[in-house]
Amino acid sequence: MGLGMANSILKAGHTAHGFDINAPQMAQFNALSGSSGDLDDIAPRLDIAMIVVLNAAQTKSVLLGPQGIIPRMRKGSVIIGCATVSPDFAREMAEEATAYGIHYLDAPISGGSIKAASGELSIMASGRPEAFVAAKSALTATAQKVFELGDQVGAGSAMKAVNQLLAGVHIATMAEAMTFGMTQGVSPQQFMEVIPSCAGSSWMLENRGPHIVSGDYTPHSSINIWPKDLGIVLDIAKSADFSAPITSAALQQFLTAAEAGLGQEDDAAVAKVYAQAAGLNLPKGAES
Amino acid sequence: MGLGMANSILKAGHTAHGFDINAPQMAQFNALSGSSGDLDDIAPRLDIAMIVVLNAAQTKSVLLGPQGIIPRMRKGSVIIGCATVSPDFAREMAEEATAYGIHYLDAPISGGSIKAASGELSIMASGRPEAFVAAKSALTATAQKVFELGDQVGAGSAMKAVNQLLAGVHIATMAEAMTFGMTQGVSPQQFMEVIPSCAGSSWMLENRGPHIVSGDYTPHSSINIWPKDLGIVLDIAKSADFSAPITSAALQQFLTAAEAGLGQEDDAAVAKVYAQAAGLNLPKGAES
Repeated sequence: MGLGMANSILKAGHTAHGFDINAPQMAQFNALSGSSGDLDDIAPRLDIAMIVVLNAAQTKSVLLGPQGIIPRMRKGSVIIGCATVSPDFAREMAEEATAYGIHYLDAPISGGSIKAASGELSIMASGRPEAFVAAKSALTATAQKVFELGDQVGAGSAMKAVNQLLAGVHIATMAEAMTFGMTQGVSPQQFMEVIPSCAGSSWMLENRGPHIVSGDYTPHSSINIWPKDLGIVLDIAKSADFSAPITSAALQQFLTAAEAGLGQEDDAAVAKVYAQAAGLNLPKGAES
Repeated sequence: MGLGMANSILKAGHTAHGFDINAPQMAQFNALSGSSGDLDDIAPRLDIAMIVVLNAAQTKSVLLGPQGIIPRMRKGSVIIGCATVSPDFAREMAEEATAYGIHYLDAPISGGSIKAASGELSIMASGRPEAFVAAKSALTATAQKVFELGDQVGAGSAMKAVNQLLAGVHIATMAEAMTFGMTQGVSPQQFMEVIPSCAGSSWMLENRGPHIVSGDYTPHSSINIWPKDLGIVLDIAKSADFSAPITSAALQQFLTAAEAGLGQEDDAAVAKVYAQAAGLNLPKGAES
């Protein structure tokens, strides 16, 4: 998603510098931008740093690790934290940035890699008005919709956690319903012909269901996202003494998928857990 | 829903006779139609009987009980079975009807009481072509969309079970996510402002979420529907050796709601189970 977002920023006419430990992604970025460089040189000149990594640990490493950018960025610049993290962690990072005179926007992203590349993400953002002002050009270049969730860092991450709870449960429920239907003679294709017009539909069902029908598990968003994101949801829930039994049941299905070696496949592959348990044959892809 | 459907049939210019053990519903129907009468006189003259009751036991009583209509209807007439039942039960009723030369359409309905009254239901129908032909005027009058799911009775009920699995889980998941958000400072109103535009949305979330925001639990579809319908889903699943852990988790929340005395409230009241457990205050309605 970071590569797509950097591309959107370049297309909007801004200068962008990319940093990724993944060499092929860096090669693609350099081919797009013609720009590379050394972080020590570049960090003090940045207006905006968008941190598009997997989780809190990676965010902390980028911001405060041995090569961390918070101590190197100039006063009045802004850090946009895009990973899915707990509200408490977002507040912690904002305090660290503030101590250096750097603004912090709590701004988790939603929409997947295709929308990242087309500049059509949804961003759930919270932070002080100055942080929104400083971040504006990057938000405009990458997002179709920015939800402004107030001046308290943490609100963006809270809303993202709520969205991930729903999105993860809906994917696993789609898989449960589709394979349940197969036991009763409803084919995945019939399922997708009927259910999107009915009260049982969801955004995720309409988006991921076709992957199962076509047997194409090319990962737009992988199974491995969900043990992480639903794990964050349940960590937050536990801290709040909140019981989330449906989320727990969905997490278990994604964990079973990851343990079965499906972690790098598209998250619709959670259907394989159900099919395996019930002895059902899912549709095969063109290449199978 | 039966009253609304009968009204739609009258509005389409057909004659309709209504039978309900609920006296106020019968009074409303008689005020609309001016028509009542004795089942013994009417059954032999019917072209179509639509059976809009709660479950398999009620369907069986109407069709084959002491006052059952199957032995009284004429050859070539059609029975339209609209309750949510198992595919096996639908096949059993079709066999009974066929033995008397009566067509049977397996035709569960979806959409709720408001769409029933406006003739805009979705109907998931399967049965022999002759059954569809015989049922056509009633389907046209009551449904916006008829999904024709083939000539095997049981397919309609199977698709309905799939839809109910999804719809029930999505209602309970909406409640889980909304109350989880409240523990993190996301109000139900903010939730409904943001999530419907995000990947976490579902048809049920958009439909039922506003009931919680407004604190209005007037039952368009009641809590009590779900122990029944998710129970049917899990009974079918068990017969097929299919494990449906997310459905089981959602059912448990509806059962807890029913045990707490919320059975007659709108199904969005499953949020009260979460709020009660977590010590949260849901929005109050105007009358509270």
